[in-house]
Amino acid sequence: MTALPRFGAGLWHFASYVDRYAVDGYAQPRTTLEQIALAGSVGDLSVVDLNYPFTPGVTLDEVKDALKDADLEAIGITPEIYLRRFGKGAFTNPDPAVRSAALDLMHEAAGVVRELGADYVKIWPGQDGWDYPFQVNHHDVWKLAKDGMKELAGNHPDLKFVIEYKPREPRVKMLWDSAPRTILGIQEIGLDNIGVLLDFGHSLYGGESPADAAQLLIDHGLLWGMDVNDNLRGWDDDLVVGTVHLTEIFEFFYTLRINGWEGVWQLDQFPFREDTVDAARTSIRLLKALHHALDTLDIAALREAQERQDAMAAQRLVQDALLSSMGGAR
Amino acid sequence: MTALPRFGAGLWHFASYVDRYAVDGYAQPRTTLEQIALAGSVGDLSVVDLNYPFTPGVTLDEVKDALKDADLEAIGITPEIYLRRFGKGAFTNPDPAVRSAALDLMHEAAGVVRELGADYVKIWPGQDGWDYPFQVNHHDVWKLAKDGMKELAGNHPDLKFVIEYKPREPRVKMLWDSAPRTILGIQEIGLDNIGVLLDFGHSLYGGESPADAAQLLIDHGLLWGMDVNDNLRGWDDDLVVGTVHLTEIFEFFYTLRINGWEGVWQLDQFPFREDTVDAARTSIRLLKALHHALDTLDIAALREAQERQDAMAAQRLVQDALLSSMGGAR
Amino acid sequence: MTALPRFGAGLWHFASYVDRYAVDGYAQPRTTLEQIALAGSVGDLSVVDLNYPFTPGVTLDEVKDALKDADLEAIGITPEIYLRRFGKGAFTNPDPAVRSAALDLMHEAAGVVRELGADYVKIWPGQDGWDYPFQVNHHDVWKLAKDGMKELAGNHPDLKFVIEYKPREPRVKMLWDSAPRTILGIQEIGLDNIGVLLDFGHSLYGGESPADAAQLLIDHGLLWGMDVNDNLRGWDDDLVVGTVHLTEIFEFFYTLRINGWEGVWQLDQFPFREDTVDAARTSIRLLKALHHALDTLDIAALREAQERQDAMAAQRLVQDALLSSMGGAR
Amino acid sequence: MTALPRFGAGLWHFASYVDRYAVDGYAQPRTTLEQIALAGSVGDLSVVDLNYPFTPGVTLDEVKDALKDADLEAIGITPEIYLRRFGKGAFTNPDPAVRSAALDLMHEAAGVVRELGADYVKIWPGQDGWDYPFQVNHHDVWKLAKDGMKELAGNHPDLKFVIEYKPREPRVKMLWDSAPRTILGIQEIGLDNIGVLLDFGHSLYGGESPADAAQLLIDHGLLWGMDVNDNLRGWDDDLVVGTVHLTEIFEFFYTLRINGWEGVWQLDQFPFREDTVDAARTSIRLLKALHHALDTLDIAALREAQERQDAMAAQRLVQDALLSSMGGAR
Repeated sequence: MTALPRFGAGLWHFASYVDRYAVDGYAQPRTTLEQIALAGSVGDLSVVDLNYPFTPGVTLDEVKDALKDADLEAIGITPEIYLRRFGKGAFTNPDPAVRSAALDLMHEAAGVVRELGADYVKIWPGQDGWDYPFQVNHHDVWKLAKDGMKELAGNHPDLKFVIEYKPREPRVKMLWDSAPRTILGIQEIGLDNIGVLLDFGHSLYGGESPADAAQLLIDHGLLWGMDVNDNLRGWDDDLVVGTVHLTEIFEFFYTLRINGWEGVWQLDQFPFREDTVDAARTSIRLLKALHHALDTLDIAALREAQERQDAMAAQRLVQDALLSSMGGAR
Repeated sequence: MTALPRFGAGLWHFASYVDRYAVDGYAQPRTTLEQIALAGSVGDLSVVDLNYPFTPGVTLDEVKDALKDADLEAIGITPEIYLRRFGKGAFTNPDPAVRSAALDLMHEAAGVVRELGADYVKIWPGQDGWDYPFQVNHHDVWKLAKDGMKELAGNHPDLKFVIEYKPREPRVKMLWDSAPRTILGIQEIGLDNIGVLLDFGHSLYGGESPADAAQLLIDHGLLWGMDVNDNLRGWDDDLVVGTVHLTEIFEFFYTLRINGWEGVWQLDQFPFREDTVDAARTSIRLLKALHHALDTLDIAALREAQERQDAMAAQRLVQDALLSSMGGAR
Repeated sequence: MTALPRFGAGLWHFASYVDRYAVDGYAQPRTTLEQIALAGSVGDLSVVDLNYPFTPGVTLDEVKDALKDADLEAIGITPEIYLRRFGKGAFTNPDPAVRSAALDLMHEAAGVVRELGADYVKIWPGQDGWDYPFQVNHHDVWKLAKDGMKELAGNHPDLKFVIEYKPREPRVKMLWDSAPRTILGIQEIGLDNIGVLLDFGHSLYGGESPADAAQLLIDHGLLWGMDVNDNLRGWDDDLVVGTVHLTEIFEFFYTLRINGWEGVWQLDQFPFREDTVDAARTSIRLLKALHHALDTLDIAALREAQERQDAMAAQRLVQDALLSSMGGAR
Repeated sequence: MTALPRFGAGLWHFASYVDRYAVDGYAQPRTTLEQIALAGSVGDLSVVDLNYPFTPGVTLDEVKDALKDADLEAIGITPEIYLRRFGKGAFTNPDPAVRSAALDLMHEAAGVVRELGADYVKIWPGQDGWDYPFQVNHHDVWKLAKDGMKELAGNHPDLKFVIEYKPREPRVKMLWDSAPRTILGIQEIGLDNIGVLLDFGHSLYGGESPADAAQLLIDHGLLWGMDVNDNLRGWDDDLVVGTVHLTEIFEFFYTLRINGWEGVWQLDQFPFREDTVDAARTSIRLLKALHHALDTLDIAALREAQERQDAMAAQRLVQDALLSSMGGAR
């Protein structure tokens, strides 16, 4: 049996949520410190990715202490470049002053990465895109997106930046929307401290095979982080991992395994109506079963079936491992 | 030229919005009274559909006065049965006390309909459904949904209730999700004061042809209201009407025309990042063009083409009218 | 352990296929008799659903003999009301002569059902619908669809007819497109010898929860047949069952179980590039595992979790059974 | 008024079609020569893209004569690397002999391009991909796809090759599935005689904005061809252009206009149930209206609105031009 991976989570997993209907939020708001304590209580998490700024009044020192108390490390910092001010974009906002403010916030976040010894600044440019046909000049906005990213990463050659692509939401269409588009953009920027964080759900509902997207990123040396969840392929539902797409999440982890990818298995979920700790524990319980299934999977036979594109033989091997994985995990 | 229809809007068209990312809202919050004033300033609106409860501190008398000042009437009242307390459902909440609270709120809304002389209570049960496979017993939740609706409408035989169906959001799957399902449910309830409000966008992204759904509802005597908007077929984007699906919105209004349906042409849009009044005016400008196109469309020739399923002839007739509609409207 | 269900397959599972690109077919054509022999060689099949007419030159007596030799019974007959002549519809074709020819073919199929002692005539009106906005008058085509079905079933009160609904393909939009629409149509027809055959994949890519659709049909007494397969939710891929949506196929069979539904578990798959017998065996291997999982699932605990809408508890129970099902099945 | 573009069509527009249901074809088969004659009869077509091999018995000399008679030129040749033999892939087939046979066919097609003086060999690798999770090793198949394309184009440095990407169909997932993925692959191949043919419908149902995809390809110097059609965003319906997405097809042509792209406006449509010549004429009638709309569109004002991301102003300008375009075109 191979050693378990380290598990992590976006800290927002332990926040409460609003949406455009439940404007009073699905639960009471929680401070960054309360969220960290909840994350710590899960018991299997080693790292968290923190939104920045922290909730009002919370200091960096308090965060450091809270992480220590919870036996957690910061893996990344995610600057909130998707709040009201950045509604029409952070990097690509039509107003240069807003673009500048967005960069300022990201520079601050870079400082927090240094302070916390985290692995990366995570850039998720959710407002950079468009809503309507004819709303933007496609050449110009893509150039702004790349130029801004270059300015940001170029200013912090000691740090790593990861771009988390997503097809849409909150903008009706986002610029960094797929694995190959993100690779292309990074190539055009030409800096070696920018990589990609692959979100399983984003890839899935964007029409990619997440396993294929992971392989493409690995082949370009750019898969620097990942997180998992689930959805119904039409939207970023951020459901708990493995609740819908068992076979494809297994293929995703299989792809990481055969490539020797050894990073953190991280959760990016929005348990709107669930107990957040219970949701995290249910997730990790499943991830452990998948890890066990990878250990029992007959990989040599699977590779041989794939060489013939023998989908039936491949499925039988996969089902043998996957559909007997929980016994071994419990 | 036929007379223009009356135009209306959901009052939320003039609110500001949050989503799960821009939690500080895309604009400053606005009171119900401010929203009414904005609606009045559009210039072409005759009616509004109001959320209930009103924003904190606003009284019914103030609303009456504001409507009068803005030269608007209330067409409907939409009780907010989708806030935090109702996160796991209003009619179908597992907690009987929450179901009861939801009904209380809807009874209150019925009272407001009487007070304002509005046409209907609009029921949009956005939280009634499920998120995960295996989360609910499908028989039981559908029974709760119908029983609650029956109790509600049965208590107010003097009023009309319209159900606005929608495939999903905020729940990953909603119970009242399509035109035929809603007709079925209403038939099972067996009351004659429950009808349907068809939202063009809900129908479109649910995989229906909105024109076909409208015809089905009309044939069952249940199309009691409608509202329009647009989207990219994958989600309820609530974009401004006619910005994407010109031909299908035209077919929708054509279907109303040939059936002699004479209700309000109503907007249900979420202009997150737009000036709300500008968005409403842009919408009505397009609706007037569509109305003009209906006047110039050669309906007899179109019917004849349809009898042969001659799609090409039909399209040429439609394009002749639609693609020369703006000149006549301006 | 409960007894295994009877397994069945559409006979076309053992045919070869063309599509609009591989016009020379993915394999050599096979006669009806050859297909029956292949079905028999699977070893676990008890019944087949046969297309009608049979391949040229094959007689009914030969089919009877072949079925006997293969130890198979006919469960249904599917008249091919989707060939060239019926391209613009069978029941709803603009040409009355074509509508009449379609009915003639279906009457013939009814005769074959009697001859073979099959359970039903299966009506799959794949060409009844439209392709373009404005191509049809929605009221008229829906009326033709119901009237034709009424004429057909009304002529054979001794037989059962099942309608297999599907959202689209080959028409861009089909008339009988969902469970509730089909129930509505059957109610309007008013005959008690018309029911529904639910195809798991059609339901799934139509945006339904197949478990919910099954429950709705059962509650209306109309679930008279079903078949299974899989897809990526965007199209009727007719993949082998369980290769993508393990949890939802399990929820589907769970719904049948708790309702005491005891019909045939039937395959409707198109193994374009696979060995058809191997594909069928791989399918049944998985179906047996699901059957085993139903026996080990803690249904009482699951029902209790559902009463609270406790999705996490429900998922853990489901994963316990599903992810240890293969060991027990092998 | 600017000069009209040259119009073209895939010759298959004038063929007849089968699909997996109407296996007897939606019309009588037509020879290559008959298809050319039909294309010529449209009256507005200047070029065609021809499938290769031609229908049985038709010689290259006959094709030359037929083109001359029809006043048409060949713009491209499309080798049929998607017939039975290539069901599991042409470039990526597991069998080296089949890969070799596919290359032989493409080499032949290259020879025909030379003979006819066409612009390019069009490569549409519809069978290169996979159907099931775990069916292929993603690294290996993508490498085979690129290596094969390199070998092909490397052998014909005097010719141009265009790859037409598509998300899926006939394979459940195709390798060359999007604009950025195709650019990436071409970059990795490193030859300058490989470009891209953008199919509007493929881009649309793949979740791209075709206008944005066109801009990206232009910015990489790779938009060497295009064709248009329409669909409902969920599948490659190959409907007649402009019958659904008027605004987005207009944005697509607008993008070409502002970039000074001056190639052929080409049709790739499958009028299964329509008269093919009528469908082509209806298409070009609409394309002329769009061309006219581009001439009347206030591009300076639109650019200014886009600089502010003022979607409403942009839409009004677009509607002014688009919704008065048919009058000018007739």
